[in-house]
Amino acid sequence: MRATLMYGAGDVRVENVPDAAIEQPTDAVVRVVRACVCGSDLHPFHAMPAGEQGQQMGHEFIGVVEEVGSEVSLIARGDFVIAPFAYFDNTCVFCREGLTTSCEHGGFFTTAQAEAVRVPLADGTLVKAPVGEDSALLPSLLTLSDVLITGHHAAVMGQVRPGSSVTVIGDGAVGLLAVLSAKRLGAEQIVLMGRHQVRTDLGRAFGATDVVAERGEEGIAKVRELTGGHGTHAVLECVGYMNAYEMAVGAVRNGGVISRVGVPQYEEAPIGFGSLFGRNVRLAGGPGAQRPYIEELLPEVLDGRIEPGRVFDRTVTLDDTPAGYTAMDERTALKVLVQP
Amino acid sequence: MRATLMYGAGDVRVENVPDAAIEQPTDAVVRVVRACVCGSDLHPFHAMPAGEQGQQMGHEFIGVVEEVGSEVSLIARGDFVIAPFAYFDNTCVFCREGLTTSCEHGGFFTTAQAEAVRVPLADGTLVKAPVGEDSALLPSLLTLSDVLITGHHAAVMGQVRPGSSVTVIGDGAVGLLAVLSAKRLGAEQIVLMGRHQVRTDLGRAFGATDVVAERGEEGIAKVRELTGGHGTHAVLECVGYMNAYEMAVGAVRNGGVISRVGVPQYEEAPIGFGSLFGRNVRLAGGPGAQRPYIEELLPEVLDGRIEPGRVFDRTVTLDDTPAGYTAMDERTALKVLVQP
Repeated sequence: MRATLMYGAGDVRVENVPDAAIEQPTDAVVRVVRACVCGSDLHPFHAMPAGEQGQQMGHEFIGVVEEVGSEVSLIARGDFVIAPFAYFDNTCVFCREGLTTSCEHGGFFTTAQAEAVRVPLADGTLVKAPVGEDSALLPSLLTLSDVLITGHHAAVMGQVRPGSSVTVIGDGAVGLLAVLSAKRLGAEQIVLMGRHQVRTDLGRAFGATDVVAERGEEGIAKVRELTGGHGTHAVLECVGYMNAYEMAVGAVRNGGVISRVGVPQYEEAPIGFGSLFGRNVRLAGGPGAQRPYIEELLPEVLDGRIEPGRVFDRTVTLDDTPAGYTAMDERTALKVLVQP
Repeated sequence: MRATLMYGAGDVRVENVPDAAIEQPTDAVVRVVRACVCGSDLHPFHAMPAGEQGQQMGHEFIGVVEEVGSEVSLIARGDFVIAPFAYFDNTCVFCREGLTTSCEHGGFFTTAQAEAVRVPLADGTLVKAPVGEDSALLPSLLTLSDVLITGHHAAVMGQVRPGSSVTVIGDGAVGLLAVLSAKRLGAEQIVLMGRHQVRTDLGRAFGATDVVAERGEEGIAKVRELTGGHGTHAVLECVGYMNAYEMAVGAVRNGGVISRVGVPQYEEAPIGFGSLFGRNVRLAGGPGAQRPYIEELLPEVLDGRIEPGRVFDRTVTLDDTPAGYTAMDERTALKVLVQP
């Protein structure tokens, strides 16, 4: 089958690989109907050392079940399914608490930009959706694989509630869907920090009340100016770089929460008296592939109450996936849909 | 009046200073009935550069109001009062939310180991207690000035609730009262990390179910062994050194909270994918002098339901305060009461 491989920074190729196949009795094979390129795929696209061995790419997909292992009982051949970017058994102690990214037997998908994917722990991982392959809802359903549940996680971990003031750092797909999620949870003021007008316009459509294009100290000053000098109850950090963390520290209100969902590109950061401790600022967040989120949000996607699929602004064929990486890297596309 | 001054590491003296006096119409002067030496006073006791100018010390006291400014209306001469370690107006936007340590006009006390203290914003800061100067409850009332409300803050910010598993790092007065506070909020398992048996025995009396004397990786392994390999929902970090933070990261359960109340003796620390983010571990805490805590806990101190004053195991006169520092530094005393 055809699959996307990265051989090093800037070097993405689509090649033939062995077909996805059942290996464990709890596996399923899903034929990919839609996949996409993630902002986090751009980190290796910038930094991966060149090598002989290509690495399969992609962790977001929806599709149709082609085959199931002998111990799979909740899904069947022909089902249309959503796969979150992590797989899990949905029965271990962490899964039962709703923290499926910490499943004791789980892991993360790394082969979704392809014609088909082997899905471990299929009963736990896959969520059925009552749609056909030609549904107009496919882009929105695909956001349940990552960017919507990640934006929602940012808002939930940021304890956004009716009346909250919220800053969202980052105008990528996750940032924009963090705006949508904060709005959905009742935030009153949503300040979107981003500088690409097409994106921030979509952010306004999703519920942003203010847009701040400035960065660094200037950006912090703008957020404080918009919030009576105090900063916001929650800052949803949807980027992952240190300068975004520093802006979050500057923009958060005393006693508030910095909720991170951008994968941190740093390990150490300031958390002492002058940054978090003295002001009782809290820090939260992490990977957001929690199955309960999909179950909560799917009905609203199906009935059109939310339209997260609006973040997709380009579609490529599987063979054109490398062009999708380039478009996202050059910011000529916000989020690229891959149609095998 | 007599007051305690520090001139550098290890150099504490009791000397005559100008009497505490009203400076602002919102001030009160409180004659100190009991003060004490804090674990955090030991940080400058170890590290303060020697100088010509002594620096007054102390931030915990209870006493009797001697004089009030013209704009003070809620307290009067002769009232017995508890002063938290911060002062605040109790009317600003942060105070109204209960975060009195972030009062827009507030600050922290630094002159309590003395015969009297000038209290700014007296109406907001001081809490009346219906006791006399000879009450047997004085030691417990004094913990409402800092160590009890700080331990309580650790437990509240750690979201301790009925059924929680909790690790408390540190067997100082704050750690032991974090144990008491976690127990009071319904924690089911409380692992106290400490190596001084007199202290950990008191911790068991306050509700610790397990004691771990080991530190570092060994200590983490012990906590995990006691919790089915998972770590605890909350870790209450009551020390402030980097090695305590590292133990907290190791002992916390995925999805759990590290709640810090030990004043961090570091600014940067690991918070990336490998430490907090990948496991959705949250970080909380800060200064705990929130007035609502005193109002919540005072009735339980008054009716003897809790006995936090048991952390005091030595009493000195004001002139002997330097010996109190030495005793706490050498760990021959857990917490030293100062009786002017």
